[in-house]
Amino acid sequence: MKTRVDLNSDMGEGFGPWRIGDGVDEQIMPLISSANIATGFHAGDPNIMQRMVSLAVQHGVGIGAHPGFRDLVGFGRRHMNATKDELVNEFIYQTGALREFCRLHGATLQHVKPHGALYMHAARDEALAHALVTTLQRLQPDVLLYCMGQSTLYKVATAQGLPTVREFFADRDYDLTGSIVFTRSVSALEPAAVAAKVLQACQEGVVQTVEGELLPIEFESVCIHSDTPGALTLLQVTRDALLSNGIVVGPASRS
Amino acid sequence: MKTRVDLNSDMGEGFGPWRIGDGVDEQIMPLISSANIATGFHAGDPNIMQRMVSLAVQHGVGIGAHPGFRDLVGFGRRHMNATKDELVNEFIYQTGALREFCRLHGATLQHVKPHGALYMHAARDEALAHALVTTLQRLQPDVLLYCMGQSTLYKVATAQGLPTVREFFADRDYDLTGSIVFTRSVSALEPAAVAAKVLQACQEGVVQTVEGELLPIEFESVCIHSDTPGALTLLQVTRDALLSNGIVVGPASRS
Amino acid sequence: MKTRVDLNSDMGEGFGPWRIGDGVDEQIMPLISSANIATGFHAGDPNIMQRMVSLAVQHGVGIGAHPGFRDLVGFGRRHMNATKDELVNEFIYQTGALREFCRLHGATLQHVKPHGALYMHAARDEALAHALVTTLQRLQPDVLLYCMGQSTLYKVATAQGLPTVREFFADRDYDLTGSIVFTRSVSALEPAAVAAKVLQACQEGVVQTVEGELLPIEFESVCIHSDTPGALTLLQVTRDALLSNGIVVGPASRS
Amino acid sequence: MKTRVDLNSDMGEGFGPWRIGDGVDEQIMPLISSANIATGFHAGDPNIMQRMVSLAVQHGVGIGAHPGFRDLVGFGRRHMNATKDELVNEFIYQTGALREFCRLHGATLQHVKPHGALYMHAARDEALAHALVTTLQRLQPDVLLYCMGQSTLYKVATAQGLPTVREFFADRDYDLTGSIVFTRSVSALEPAAVAAKVLQACQEGVVQTVEGELLPIEFESVCIHSDTPGALTLLQVTRDALLSNGIVVGPASRS
Repeated sequence: MKTRVDLNSDMGEGFGPWRIGDGVDEQIMPLISSANIATGFHAGDPNIMQRMVSLAVQHGVGIGAHPGFRDLVGFGRRHMNATKDELVNEFIYQTGALREFCRLHGATLQHVKPHGALYMHAARDEALAHALVTTLQRLQPDVLLYCMGQSTLYKVATAQGLPTVREFFADRDYDLTGSIVFTRSVSALEPAAVAAKVLQACQEGVVQTVEGELLPIEFESVCIHSDTPGALTLLQVTRDALLSNGIVVGPASRS
Repeated sequence: MKTRVDLNSDMGEGFGPWRIGDGVDEQIMPLISSANIATGFHAGDPNIMQRMVSLAVQHGVGIGAHPGFRDLVGFGRRHMNATKDELVNEFIYQTGALREFCRLHGATLQHVKPHGALYMHAARDEALAHALVTTLQRLQPDVLLYCMGQSTLYKVATAQGLPTVREFFADRDYDLTGSIVFTRSVSALEPAAVAAKVLQACQEGVVQTVEGELLPIEFESVCIHSDTPGALTLLQVTRDALLSNGIVVGPASRS
Repeated sequence: MKTRVDLNSDMGEGFGPWRIGDGVDEQIMPLISSANIATGFHAGDPNIMQRMVSLAVQHGVGIGAHPGFRDLVGFGRRHMNATKDELVNEFIYQTGALREFCRLHGATLQHVKPHGALYMHAARDEALAHALVTTLQRLQPDVLLYCMGQSTLYKVATAQGLPTVREFFADRDYDLTGSIVFTRSVSALEPAAVAAKVLQACQEGVVQTVEGELLPIEFESVCIHSDTPGALTLLQVTRDALLSNGIVVGPASRS
Repeated sequence: MKTRVDLNSDMGEGFGPWRIGDGVDEQIMPLISSANIATGFHAGDPNIMQRMVSLAVQHGVGIGAHPGFRDLVGFGRRHMNATKDELVNEFIYQTGALREFCRLHGATLQHVKPHGALYMHAARDEALAHALVTTLQRLQPDVLLYCMGQSTLYKVATAQGLPTVREFFADRDYDLTGSIVFTRSVSALEPAAVAAKVLQACQEGVVQTVEGELLPIEFESVCIHSDTPGALTLLQVTRDALLSNGIVVGPASRS
């Protein structure tokens, strides 16, 4: 039974003239408590990052770096057979780029969250997980690492003492193993259903799987992707449901 | 009459499998006191940046960010008609990326030096110069800005109180106006002549122009480009000449 | 008094996951007679090009290459100080990439139209205009070159005997010099007004300038940009107005 | 017992200011009979492609497109989890870009050869092999496909009737399975040993494996990579050995 939960979303995932999803980052920002800001390799560019960090500061939203594979045309969704060291160096590069905008605005980097195929790769690959966690501890020992509770990355971070925030994906389906049912294109979701799902997860600590069973789930943050069709409405309705049930939406705290 | 001077060179200007010039950054690093490390837009990638920062730390070399126009194929040598805000945001992005590698290694960013066409643009464009200086003061008020003593950028930085380091280009020709004679491809230079030129500049404060006159020149740092053919030898001979004439080669101090 | 006119629009100006404007290329394609398909440097990627060429073939739309400056983040709208030879080589590269998709589909490349800042540069720079025209004549002497009637490019192409198609920009304002009034962001236009403007241009050969005067205008093709807000409606209403006034919308013929 | 063999090498694998290996493409070109010219995704740019095609035409060298994964920083050596359709579209794009330079010079595209990780992927993945072969047959039914004799790609092309050229890698080791022993960095090779190995392969149809056995090998072309250290000497010595043993070095003919 939670009385407080973090609400996170991917922000700034445009590039140059292009915007992702409905292009409503400006409207989404006030509704969330943590923003995962794209750092230029899968999406995002310096102008967008400047706007997003400025907007996050203005609304008191926790700022996170959202680095991905260096695959702009593939939006970081395709695994690349890069070495652990290459991925760590690209992670440092991207995180630093975003941190500099925080520095400009007098803000502190709250968290990091790998994107797309890199998120999945770090979730499974123990060597990469170790390298990322060790690197983050050298860079900023109190930075929050967003991850899945079932992932190798979570286990490694916990074992090494790096603070983590586990996510609940409001706009994805779960199966009995606790894994997300992968889909490349997400169809429009019913806002009330999403809100109810989040509420149940927060209040009862369970999620209904695609098989119809109730699965226990632990998390500190609810993720709603900004490129899910109708994301703005999903976020508004979910946030309202949380607030009207006495659950505070606020910056992440470690697991 | 100097008893001490900084020796700077551009480092890490490869990309992926490619190296610039003679590919001898590892041998050059111990000879210089300040390294301008490419930050990925005109050259440089996260793996190279990691190696260069590590190498600089190992040799006690001052670390500088060397951001350029977003023009990899053109090596940042072609002016792009970008807005001041676009350029400032790209500057922040690149500087932050490099700073993060410093952070990893417990080092402090010593300086920034724009690259190529951006160096020339910032030297001339007052609005950009103001924006860059103001941004740097917000990011790190004690960072050293490398620039030409005759530039608008130098005037603006000095007026606003940002510390600067003026450069003397050992491998370029000067004309009577104090400007560098522009050339895209630099032919091999005579090491002894370069060393003598630097020594004269340090000891007498003058440089001989292409017109044959002696021009007074003020500077705190000598630049020898790593992509000048024979750069390693130029640096060795120049450094030896300085040392054997009692001039210490050491980290930059502000003008 | 025209009885036939070409209607052209920029197609495929997305990149990876991103779409431009309202993302309605599929609906626009059946309404136009010539498609300027982005070729990857300012926008467009191989997947999008495949779809666009396939769609153009399906609807009998004339296929044109729409090459731009190598500036993805700037959408090819920023002038780059590249040499004539660099620009010609990039033009060849991009044109060939698109031509190969035509080849796959058994189609012939109808035209070429430079994009954005390259369009403006080629319109003004005589050396580049000569080089482009000469190159196109070596590549495909009967390819149509889309350009402005007032441009240097038009004069050079005409003098050298390369067929041209002059454009009338339905969604841009003209001034008394016959130049387009430049604007980075185009606000929503009134469809009926745009249609009336096109009709007047076709029937009377004049356009009303921002100063209020009627300016004679010669053209063979009407351009409506697909990233103009409401482009689909503009195209539908304009096309309907042309058809109901007895003006056939059909593939370009040379000036 | 061959009396004629093709000698191929990768050409134009620089990018912007950078050159690969010893940067001696100009000297290598007259020694080979087929050039695999990089097409911009893993290496190569329009200026380099222009120079390489011009040089190949001048020396009567067969021109091939050498497309790779879209991974410039990784030089196309890292597998990317792209779909078959994405890879085919990128293949078309790159091949067309090179073909346009051939068109400019009045030359015909002789062959295609995927690069690096794409070469290995197409060698193993039957669905991709089918898609590539079918696409090539639509584009140019007589284009030669360079591949390994043991690969799925060879089997598929042969079955579908696309002409192939099988390669013998003079600068790589073979094992008993007929596979190349993979290595990221190739150490300097003894030119006389390489020449002897090629001569034996041409005259006796065998290669000595790393296990010491003689393995039968079938091929129509000998590949020496231009980024192998000392490539120029390897090519000269090998070519001389072939010629002085009465084996003509000439353009590829199909297997």
